[in-house]
Amino acid sequence: MSKHTRSQRPGQKTGTQGRRSTPPAERQIGRHDAARGERKDAPAHKSGEVWLYGHHAVAAALTNPSRKILRLMGTAEALAKLAEDAGDLGNARTCSRREIDAVVGEDAVHQGIAMLTRALDHNLTDVLELSSANPNACIMVLDQVTDPHNVGAILRSAAAFGAVAVIAPDRHAPEENGVMAKSASGALDKIAYIKTTNLVRALEEIKEHRFWVVGLDAHAKDMVGQVKLGGRIALVLGAEGEGVRRLVLETCDHVAKLPMAGDMESLNVSNAAAVALYEKVRQDTKT
Amino acid sequence: MSKHTRSQRPGQKTGTQGRRSTPPAERQIGRHDAARGERKDAPAHKSGEVWLYGHHAVAAALTNPSRKILRLMGTAEALAKLAEDAGDLGNARTCSRREIDAVVGEDAVHQGIAMLTRALDHNLTDVLELSSANPNACIMVLDQVTDPHNVGAILRSAAAFGAVAVIAPDRHAPEENGVMAKSASGALDKIAYIKTTNLVRALEEIKEHRFWVVGLDAHAKDMVGQVKLGGRIALVLGAEGEGVRRLVLETCDHVAKLPMAGDMESLNVSNAAAVALYEKVRQDTKT
Repeated sequence: MSKHTRSQRPGQKTGTQGRRSTPPAERQIGRHDAARGERKDAPAHKSGEVWLYGHHAVAAALTNPSRKILRLMGTAEALAKLAEDAGDLGNARTCSRREIDAVVGEDAVHQGIAMLTRALDHNLTDVLELSSANPNACIMVLDQVTDPHNVGAILRSAAAFGAVAVIAPDRHAPEENGVMAKSASGALDKIAYIKTTNLVRALEEIKEHRFWVVGLDAHAKDMVGQVKLGGRIALVLGAEGEGVRRLVLETCDHVAKLPMAGDMESLNVSNAAAVALYEKVRQDTKT
Repeated sequence: MSKHTRSQRPGQKTGTQGRRSTPPAERQIGRHDAARGERKDAPAHKSGEVWLYGHHAVAAALTNPSRKILRLMGTAEALAKLAEDAGDLGNARTCSRREIDAVVGEDAVHQGIAMLTRALDHNLTDVLELSSANPNACIMVLDQVTDPHNVGAILRSAAAFGAVAVIAPDRHAPEENGVMAKSASGALDKIAYIKTTNLVRALEEIKEHRFWVVGLDAHAKDMVGQVKLGGRIALVLGAEGEGVRRLVLETCDHVAKLPMAGDMESLNVSNAAAVALYEKVRQDTKT
């Protein structure tokens, strides 16, 4: 199997592999009409509802069969561009940029498009089941990485390097949100972002599914290139500064560090994740 | 020479290698008293003046002998922490968080510390001269990367992997600013960030100093791991989406792409830069 061919995509829980036959917008928009009690286009903070924005994030959500779409709104120009990439937009509503500003905030780089959705509901057991036949499956585990920009960028790199999931603890890690989805540039709907109550227990479950667990730690003896990263690997990264917590690190089979010039302490965590993912894919394809 | 030992640091134009004997704050603060005509602590938008904020950015500026410091202000707690890392703070002024909010903006993660400085003034000729004896010198060249967060993260990774400079065009690239410095986490004062009028001409000058120029391009035939990146290398990265412009790409000796799963278009540009830098250092140290 090519390293880039994933036999399953955990981001698509239905198991549908080909292009959907029914455009998801058409299929799903309006499903939750009954729940629309609040003021039209007001920011939604109800539990489980998320505003996504930006072309790539919204286009990816539209083409994800697991994504429940509650509303789609955009400028005429942005909707036309979206239809080119994502097909039928269903009952999308044409609106002004100002209306989108009001929903997602003026500071959001929304590119004229916004979508109200339900947060995705992934779980680790499904992901492990679906990736059981993938000899090079990779899972990213984030220990208290709190910035949604970083988590989004890590989702993007994880998807780009063919990983199957990004796992974070319930606490001290962001919920799925618009900033994360924008930063992920569509990856939030391509791989699974899973929140878990107990990271150590999740790592034990991952190990039971024949993954080696490798933690990145600045104090490690071995460089990341000296540790076996090929095959089924979970990569554990911690918050900048604190690093991976002791109990989590003790659950790792190996620890490794990145090469680093003497006067810099660390990389940005998403850059460190990209390097580790690259080294993993490099080792997978080296033979 | 170890790959992480730079014989010169272009970020320090004086050529001083050891720790400065005179604390720069003491030495430099107050130099520009005569120029302080504006309201005390008001945002400075005068050409060449920059507000830096955040612990790492300010600490690195304090320990950079080339950095002209005009003012330093912080909460008592933040100044105490800063003194631990950066030594004597000279006539720093203790103030409230609110005063810092007023200067650098409430949204800035300033960590209770802000510094008014003059922008650094690097030039390519000096950097090339200083790195002439470094057999593994690396220069990052950014073609129209506009987001200061990304440029800052690239400066950070470039410094972490021992590169000597990051070069960007005068237009369509950010000036040195607080967001960039915060994102660079001190790297802005450790390697040279150089703006140049003409990127193609800069690349020609770089080539004359025995650098190979390698451009990253999604349409390249070779993977980055298949191209020689060891030795004296300039790495050229373009904006996300557009990539490196044609004329710039034609100036490259080689082009290479990153491994990428089929359904993702690209990495975040700072993540792509980190991966390319890692591959370069990996090749340098492989033998």
